[in-house]
Amino acid sequence: MMAELLKGLEVTKAMREKMIFEVEELNSMGITPTLGIIRVGARPDDLSYEKGAVKRCESVGVKVKVFELGENISQAELEEKIKEVNNDSLIHGILLFRPLPAHLNEENIKFLVSPQKDIDCMNPINIAKVFAGDESGFAPCTPEAVVEILDYYNIPVEGKNVAVIGRSMIVGKPLSMLLLKRNATITICHTRTKNITDITKNAEILIVAAGKAKLVTRDYISPGAVVIDVGINVDEKGNLCGDVDFNSVEEVAGKITPVPGGVGTVTTSVLVKHVIKAAKLNNLA
Amino acid sequence: MMAELLKGLEVTKAMREKMIFEVEELNSMGITPTLGIIRVGARPDDLSYEKGAVKRCESVGVKVKVFELGENISQAELEEKIKEVNNDSLIHGILLFRPLPAHLNEENIKFLVSPQKDIDCMNPINIAKVFAGDESGFAPCTPEAVVEILDYYNIPVEGKNVAVIGRSMIVGKPLSMLLLKRNATITICHTRTKNITDITKNAEILIVAAGKAKLVTRDYISPGAVVIDVGINVDEKGNLCGDVDFNSVEEVAGKITPVPGGVGTVTTSVLVKHVIKAAKLNNLA
Repeated sequence: MMAELLKGLEVTKAMREKMIFEVEELNSMGITPTLGIIRVGARPDDLSYEKGAVKRCESVGVKVKVFELGENISQAELEEKIKEVNNDSLIHGILLFRPLPAHLNEENIKFLVSPQKDIDCMNPINIAKVFAGDESGFAPCTPEAVVEILDYYNIPVEGKNVAVIGRSMIVGKPLSMLLLKRNATITICHTRTKNITDITKNAEILIVAAGKAKLVTRDYISPGAVVIDVGINVDEKGNLCGDVDFNSVEEVAGKITPVPGGVGTVTTSVLVKHVIKAAKLNNLA
Repeated sequence: MMAELLKGLEVTKAMREKMIFEVEELNSMGITPTLGIIRVGARPDDLSYEKGAVKRCESVGVKVKVFELGENISQAELEEKIKEVNNDSLIHGILLFRPLPAHLNEENIKFLVSPQKDIDCMNPINIAKVFAGDESGFAPCTPEAVVEILDYYNIPVEGKNVAVIGRSMIVGKPLSMLLLKRNATITICHTRTKNITDITKNAEILIVAAGKAKLVTRDYISPGAVVIDVGINVDEKGNLCGDVDFNSVEEVAGKITPVPGGVGTVTTSVLVKHVIKAAKLNNLA
């Protein structure tokens, strides 16, 4: 028996409907939720993500304003621009592409983005909130996308043994905190973990954010387990693939996200959801 | 065979010697590391902790200045006092007793304590650093005391299966992050964890910060495991006891901390260590 596919597209569709409704409500109060994208230079990766984000925003009625800055912009000029966007009451959420060019100091900049507009969880104030289980701020989009998928497919996490492979500040750690908040029992595994399959085989839900193509094979999986693949890699044939060896794992797992078409698809919708949340925070609080 | 006792007093002795040396070095540069204690009212708990902290500070040459404020102090007056102590270049670390009386808003105040003087990890900037594994700030004292004990007794954590019972922001979560930074594989358990003994029996190191007297019995323990008891409770006979049922567990565990005389003893020394670190941060950075 093959695992049930957890399709990102289904999740984004449901999120889209809810967001359209919320945007209409805001519109009726004279508010147009607006994302401000601050982009330094024009890296292809950034442009590609931006294109997807703009499309997803517009599909639910969220406006986007792009501030393209020269790649040689000075620290002071960038800081000035961030302050300007912070103070612009018509912009509710700020996305600043990272990494910044090497001559810019990201360390200072992350404090500058107003916590109320920090939809991509740069500011330590929002990071500390994620750690504390305080949902009034913004979590990073990718871990929240994982939670959206689990919710949409009615997969309970309370009291479940959840193993997370990966401990980055972008995925593994914040995701562990989001699931801990929902009363999962969390094990955080990583490159130094010994006998990792002993641990993952005990997991009812396994989330892989290791950044290593096809790391997880059927030997990692408890029969029937839910497997969420956060990885995005290119395999030896040049195809997109996740951190999970899909063909091997889908024969054992109960449910599994594909790559592409899984977590990545939902991440952009979470970004849009955050803009709407920010519009409410900035206007209705 | 009985478990080896991990004695807090041994750890504090070793820390004390190192700290005396560091204070002498600072003295030779004209710096007297100084702790500022801000206390609102005179609760017996606070007074008792203060007495211990003052004694421990003075024993290594760290000065203490106590700011006792009336329990009816206004929010504005307390904030003013914190700013004053922040700006006092002769005070390096700030300890503010919590919880504050109900009429005061702790939420605002935690941002006020300068991150460089925030030796008790109130400020979200230091909390976010603990989460990120950035050791340039200050972690909460109790979890760091656990790490001090493991270090002193040469108990390696890298690659070990460590179970933490408890997920508070004071102990469980920050401790999980400190040990993750040292490459342990961490499982965070709590009241909603199912079949908890299955998990704890797989742990080579078990750390208990559940806040429940004698919760952990020998059934939780893998033979030879290291057991660290963070709990401080009063048992039915009025005696201090931990979250671990010591008599039952010491017959199975390899090493164990007593209560009293374990983690709690070391916590105050970590506070003093932080004052010295703050004196360096404020003067030598």
